[in-house]
Amino acid sequence: MAGLVSASVEKRLRALEDRAEIAELISRYGPAVDSGDGDAARALWADDGTYTFEDVTLDADGIRTLTEFPTHQGYMRAGCAHVISAPHITISGDTAVAITHSVVLIHGDGRWEAERVSANRWELVRTADGWRVACRRNHLLDGDAKARALLAD
Amino acid sequence: MAGLVSASVEKRLRALEDRAEIAELISRYGPAVDSGDGDAARALWADDGTYTFEDVTLDADGIRTLTEFPTHQGYMRAGCAHVISAPHITISGDTAVAITHSVVLIHGDGRWEAERVSANRWELVRTADGWRVACRRNHLLDGDAKARALLAD
Amino acid sequence: MAGLVSASVEKRLRALEDRAEIAELISRYGPAVDSGDGDAARALWADDGTYTFEDVTLDADGIRTLTEFPTHQGYMRAGCAHVISAPHITISGDTAVAITHSVVLIHGDGRWEAERVSANRWELVRTADGWRVACRRNHLLDGDAKARALLAD
Repeated sequence: MAGLVSASVEKRLRALEDRAEIAELISRYGPAVDSGDGDAARALWADDGTYTFEDVTLDADGIRTLTEFPTHQGYMRAGCAHVISAPHITISGDTAVAITHSVVLIHGDGRWEAERVSANRWELVRTADGWRVACRRNHLLDGDAKARALLAD
Repeated sequence: MAGLVSASVEKRLRALEDRAEIAELISRYGPAVDSGDGDAARALWADDGTYTFEDVTLDADGIRTLTEFPTHQGYMRAGCAHVISAPHITISGDTAVAITHSVVLIHGDGRWEAERVSANRWELVRTADGWRVACRRNHLLDGDAKARALLAD
Repeated sequence: MAGLVSASVEKRLRALEDRAEIAELISRYGPAVDSGDGDAARALWADDGTYTFEDVTLDADGIRTLTEFPTHQGYMRAGCAHVISAPHITISGDTAVAITHSVVLIHGDGRWEAERVSANRWELVRTADGWRVACRRNHLLDGDAKARALLAD
């Protein structure tokens, strides 16, 4: 008996696990980059994954070195928090899309300022090792229609 | 065998699904209004649902046109992010209450400012189409006791 | 039949429930302190639990009176929001670690400012009454390496 799981229960468990795993994956991004751990950030992406913000596209190696960029090093020295909102997740079999906001808070003069506020669209893929980011696209929410398009269903 | 699910497993699955579905429902609000999609915002509410902030109460039709309000149009032109915190959810059968904070960040002069920070109390109801918002009440966290009351259990 | 749950299904349900319960526990902190309910904040911790921020460590009784501190009373009078990000959770049997950011927004002059932005490390323990906080440690993300260390895996 012990190995018997009804198809319906299996499907429902899998749906819940997929959603929890994707939320967990995304939740690791902020702590990874704010602690300067490029390998931990890289590990969220598939091997052929990409991360695009404004006119820059990084591949997996680029993501691994993201925390070494002068801008990011400056953020860490000042004190920074990359805060990502609870994701809106749509799963379709072995792929998924998650929509979030990200807010980068930077310390200065005893205050934190929202230096960057972006729309984020995460395209995810189920791999042999679990869900990974295939493509993340960010755009600053500065009034540009491109940012609004990333948030649309 | 395939259709057989123990009452206990069914109950536990349902509790997990309810919680995941409510969190997902709430997560869709920010992307809907920040992308100017009033229909998507409206779809979160039950047909007789309401949304009250300060001294304004909108019905479902009002919620559908929320993104067309001059204030909201101005927010979108400037660049805006309606960020909602991970919800504290209490489920009681076919109704539920979710408590969140909402932060509206508006772009200007290369920075984003927290223009509105509110306490949110979402009363939810299980409908034939899934969980929907019956009533959402917001109050600015500006020191007014009414806002604190919305956050209380 | 009704009471029979396979070991595998039980394990998967438990893993999902643990994660949901811990996320829910953490989500209650902000509403508790922003509504001035010290008992609700205290209830999140184990009886021998602690909360450390900068060079202060509170025990469970201290956490219960946290909302009565003059600083916190001033925050509530001005209007405050303790917003906590969606947690990165790692569960190991009957203990768990959750990593979050916390942002304390304070009202003044018609705006809200990020008065405190911290790295948070929550150590949790499964008790007879469910998951509770054994130890929460905060550090301001002001450039200090100690804050970054709290975010590291």
